[in-house]
Amino acid sequence: MRFVVIGGDAAGMSAASKAKRNDPKMEVIVLEQTSDVSYSACGMPYNIADPDRQMDDLVVRRAEVFIEKQGIDLRLGHRAERIDRPNRTVTGRTSSGESFEVTFDKLLIATGARPRVLNIPGKDLPGVLVLKSLEDGRVLKNYLQTHKVRSAIIVGAGYIGLEMAEAFHARNVAVEILDVLPELLPWMPETMAEVVRNELKDKGVNLHLAAGVRFIEQVGPRLAVNFTGGRLVVDTVLMGVGVVPNSEMAAEAGLDLGPSRAIAVDKALHTSDSDIFAAGDCADAFHVLTGERVWIPLALRANRAGWAVADNITGRAMELPGVVGTAVFKVLDLEVAHSGLSLDEAASAGFDPVDELIRSPSRAHGHPGNQTIYVHLVADRNTGKLLGGNMVGKEGVAHRIDAVAVALHAGMTVQEFFQCDMAYAPPFSPVWDPMLTAANQLLKRL
Amino acid sequence: MRFVVIGGDAAGMSAASKAKRNDPKMEVIVLEQTSDVSYSACGMPYNIADPDRQMDDLVVRRAEVFIEKQGIDLRLGHRAERIDRPNRTVTGRTSSGESFEVTFDKLLIATGARPRVLNIPGKDLPGVLVLKSLEDGRVLKNYLQTHKVRSAIIVGAGYIGLEMAEAFHARNVAVEILDVLPELLPWMPETMAEVVRNELKDKGVNLHLAAGVRFIEQVGPRLAVNFTGGRLVVDTVLMGVGVVPNSEMAAEAGLDLGPSRAIAVDKALHTSDSDIFAAGDCADAFHVLTGERVWIPLALRANRAGWAVADNITGRAMELPGVVGTAVFKVLDLEVAHSGLSLDEAASAGFDPVDELIRSPSRAHGHPGNQTIYVHLVADRNTGKLLGGNMVGKEGVAHRIDAVAVALHAGMTVQEFFQCDMAYAPPFSPVWDPMLTAANQLLKRL
Repeated sequence: MRFVVIGGDAAGMSAASKAKRNDPKMEVIVLEQTSDVSYSACGMPYNIADPDRQMDDLVVRRAEVFIEKQGIDLRLGHRAERIDRPNRTVTGRTSSGESFEVTFDKLLIATGARPRVLNIPGKDLPGVLVLKSLEDGRVLKNYLQTHKVRSAIIVGAGYIGLEMAEAFHARNVAVEILDVLPELLPWMPETMAEVVRNELKDKGVNLHLAAGVRFIEQVGPRLAVNFTGGRLVVDTVLMGVGVVPNSEMAAEAGLDLGPSRAIAVDKALHTSDSDIFAAGDCADAFHVLTGERVWIPLALRANRAGWAVADNITGRAMELPGVVGTAVFKVLDLEVAHSGLSLDEAASAGFDPVDELIRSPSRAHGHPGNQTIYVHLVADRNTGKLLGGNMVGKEGVAHRIDAVAVALHAGMTVQEFFQCDMAYAPPFSPVWDPMLTAANQLLKRL
Repeated sequence: MRFVVIGGDAAGMSAASKAKRNDPKMEVIVLEQTSDVSYSACGMPYNIADPDRQMDDLVVRRAEVFIEKQGIDLRLGHRAERIDRPNRTVTGRTSSGESFEVTFDKLLIATGARPRVLNIPGKDLPGVLVLKSLEDGRVLKNYLQTHKVRSAIIVGAGYIGLEMAEAFHARNVAVEILDVLPELLPWMPETMAEVVRNELKDKGVNLHLAAGVRFIEQVGPRLAVNFTGGRLVVDTVLMGVGVVPNSEMAAEAGLDLGPSRAIAVDKALHTSDSDIFAAGDCADAFHVLTGERVWIPLALRANRAGWAVADNITGRAMELPGVVGTAVFKVLDLEVAHSGLSLDEAASAGFDPVDELIRSPSRAHGHPGNQTIYVHLVADRNTGKLLGGNMVGKEGVAHRIDAVAVALHAGMTVQEFFQCDMAYAPPFSPVWDPMLTAANQLLKRL
């Protein structure tokens, strides 16, 4: 049996590796259009922050290892362009311009996502950069190394934008963030978003909200960004306005698409063609709480889905229950975490949502080094079920959110969550963990 | 209705306060033998570590607040000595020697626990100290302030012993720990205990195992501790060989006792007399995983049980599902956490346990500052259910354990736990959280 994988990053290489582990005799071909496979894309902001680190430190496993040690037929510089379903072939073109054709028995589309591009004048000027692939990272880091970059604008206040604000800050680059929305992180309560805004302000990062970018122009060696409400001249511009799934090839092959035009897959990662799977940032998932399809492209899901595809094509039936959208990111000295549904998402999904926001010390009464943790929980009034949580704080947030995630997967009520026997020691928590305090307050509203 | 509480610490004051909040007209009398109420006993090692902090910083709420603001009839210096069940009275003696008698409609026994005493020669010598009550803490801290203490022996390598090793270390007191058991922290795998042993060694704390203390003698101003395998002369000795429940008064009143002679309570915290409740370190609890009675005296349970008693006597029926024994403590720069059943406990409870220990980086591939996290999970071979977890590491352990605790409360299988959508960002975790890696490895043994 021949298993062909299009795309050699998280989902693709996870699937290829696991397929070979499950069945060493299986022929596994991976078509990767770049020369990079298996790297930690999420690590790029932190790598860029440190001029002494090499971008290639982020490579988790080199291509030779996959080829020589694992026996995967990894073909770099192979850009797949068309899937011919009746003939079970993938055709494309190599980086040297030659066309190729590969037949498959089972196919995995793991083409990932690409940065969304604002179609504005000046978007292609030198110094207007994006950050998605490792090559993007090399270009950005090299730009910082070879140009005198003292100021930057980040367009988009999402995860990448906020993480890159920290990276620029670490390199003494003055940062301005522009976002078209009137609110920062609109999925969390205003009070929590204000904590993030204050952290940006404290570190000298200027945030401009309701600031839609209109055009960018060259001003000598610099760039002028013209936006609703202003104009700023800086040395570089990073566009971080989200990503879109690379699903065009799948759509052209007649495969069904789901939300945000991600490739629709079932719990076993089949597309609408049972011999063709999709996994990673190009594919959708089921939300555990709503049962609906969602597109939440995150690294863990990509790896997990890749493994599940490998299991399914090697005779180990594997269905994934789905996602709850757990995410954490660092904004300068703050940890920001989320799991489950926001208040608005819960209402849209037909729940009768009720929420509560509490603030709590991060450590026991009287323990030095106390910080403030903000915990926001969302529940359904009808069933008492926990639906989601947000946390912000300078410590103790990043791993606490996993307890909420597990509770969401388990379908716990707020009362059941409140009764959980959580850990306590003075350096790490008050006796009543902030999550329990939030649950207790939320119970009063149910 | 008159609600009488014996003991004014975590469980007792939680119950008294909540009873008043639930029903401001209720008469609430608290009998506390010392002059301290509502303090963070667990914070004492950290307070003792810092000569500049006052021990009374650990008082969470002063007696006057309970009396004046909350309307609780808090009687300090009142030592309850006898419960007369037929007549519904508690009798005792005040610190000035006067006898008293109080009648009750509902009674809460929240008498806590006391340090276990090794009945050996020399146990009462000056400089042989214990640490349980705030007064114990004051005595110990004062001893360090007023004596030239350059060396100490801690007898007992449990939570308190290990936390106090850090406190002595912080005050430049050379520490030796003696424990009668042949292994350190025998509930965790040898490999993990070795990590803790190495941390002690790295910080210059000597650990003597299989070292039963035989007698202590005065040697000039110092103390000689004679134990199996040796003799050491130091400036002070801290006895930390565990605690025993203060359940004698309950036993004399004919109330049932449970494991370790803790007072037996049902899920609503009733003792075998339905008008008499028990909560806190003097009472037992049901283990969520085994359904059996256990005695795991910890602060969160004490507070929670106190609240539940208040709810039950004010007409808000409240049953607690029980405990899974989640605990975390700090050993110098290490975090050590536990939840659920150990391998031995699981076997004793009739499960067919199987376990797995993994080590994982604490952060993403290539992220600076990576530490090693050890995760040990225990499961039942018959049902695939997760039964317990242990973790050790220099970061990211203290709050991660709560995800295991929630999974245990939810009765999750290892497969369900493995499918949870956990948080990932490079500064906080690898893509596959160490808990997921452990679950994945454990699945291969099921």
